Amino acid sequence: MIAMQVREFVEADWPHVWPIVREVIQAEETFTYDPAMTAEQARDTWVVRPPGVTAVAVEGHRTIGTAHMQTNRAGRGSHVSTASFMVASDARGRRVGEALCRYALDWARSRGYAGMQFNAVVETNHAAVNLYQRLGFQIVGTVPGAFDHPKFGRVGLHVMYIEL
Amino acid sequence: MIAMQVREFVEADWPHVWPIVREVIQAEETFTYDPAMTAEQARDTWVVRPPGVTAVAVEGHRTIGTAHMQTNRAGRGSHVSTASFMVASDARGRRVGEALCRYALDWARSRGYAGMQFNAVVETNHAAVNLYQRLGFQIVGTVPGAFDHPKFGRVGLHVMYIEL
Repeated sequence: MIAMQVREFVEADWPHVWPIVREVIQAEETFTYDPAMTAEQARDTWVVRPPGVTAVAVEGHRTIGTAHMQTNRAGRGSHVSTASFMVASDARGRRVGEALCRYALDWARSRGYAGMQFNAVVETNHAAVNLYQRLGFQIVGTVPGAFDHPKFGRVGLHVMYIEL
Repeated sequence: MIAMQVREFVEADWPHVWPIVREVIQAEETFTYDPAMTAEQARDTWVVRPPGVTAVAVEGHRTIGTAHMQTNRAGRGSHVSTASFMVASDARGRRVGEALCRYALDWARSRGYAGMQFNAVVETNHAAVNLYQRLGFQIVGTVPGAFDHPKFGRVGLHVMYIEL
């Protein structure tokens, strides 16, 4: 078995990251991104500027997941970070999301953020909700019906938070 | 007494809107905007693109408040709207915020949005929290300590929501 490694994104990664981003946004089950986004629009959204960091999970030469992490709000809110994660569908259930989330939490702690907030976690995305709770995030509240799920109709969006 | 009127923003309004925006963001008590924003950066943030609308509250020739309203999230979240409001300090306590909020709710209803969400209401901004509750918004949850208030230190940011 080849070990999985999470590392910072470099330019050459994009052709391997884009298929994962495309698959996730076109499924429309977990992100409130426009599914018609072009590769360039997706790149502008996913690859964040410093002090934000984009990361990839790789297994040998294969890219199996990606994350980005950044400051959640400007000005008087800039002590709280946020992050998002995407895992290739055929690599799910193998703790890739967990490795990415731990990487993001390490990043946030090392930069001195006071906490990490997820602004919109689809409540039917149980794998994600369970993982975040296992890592210490709490559900602050749920905006009712704020996500129009293609299979389940209008479901809630959790706001989740962890103090660091 | 001259009647207050809320109407859509036009280009010629910006020189009268900017002093209000500048005053509010430099006070750093209610918005998580960078207080060092230039007029141009503030304009790019405050004056939103269609289907979003920017509005002003005017009293005779004087601009006393401003609002913007738009879709809160893309894709599968685009049935929920959001809005923000700013009132000139010397016009507060006279229901200018209420008139702007009612205008935003009318806009959202007429466009068929399912609800309106406020993503970050500073919990010490009692005038705003009370107004929103009076108009039917509920506090969905409060992210603890997510706003570094210049007077009160770290206070919570409410997520508020109303179904339309």
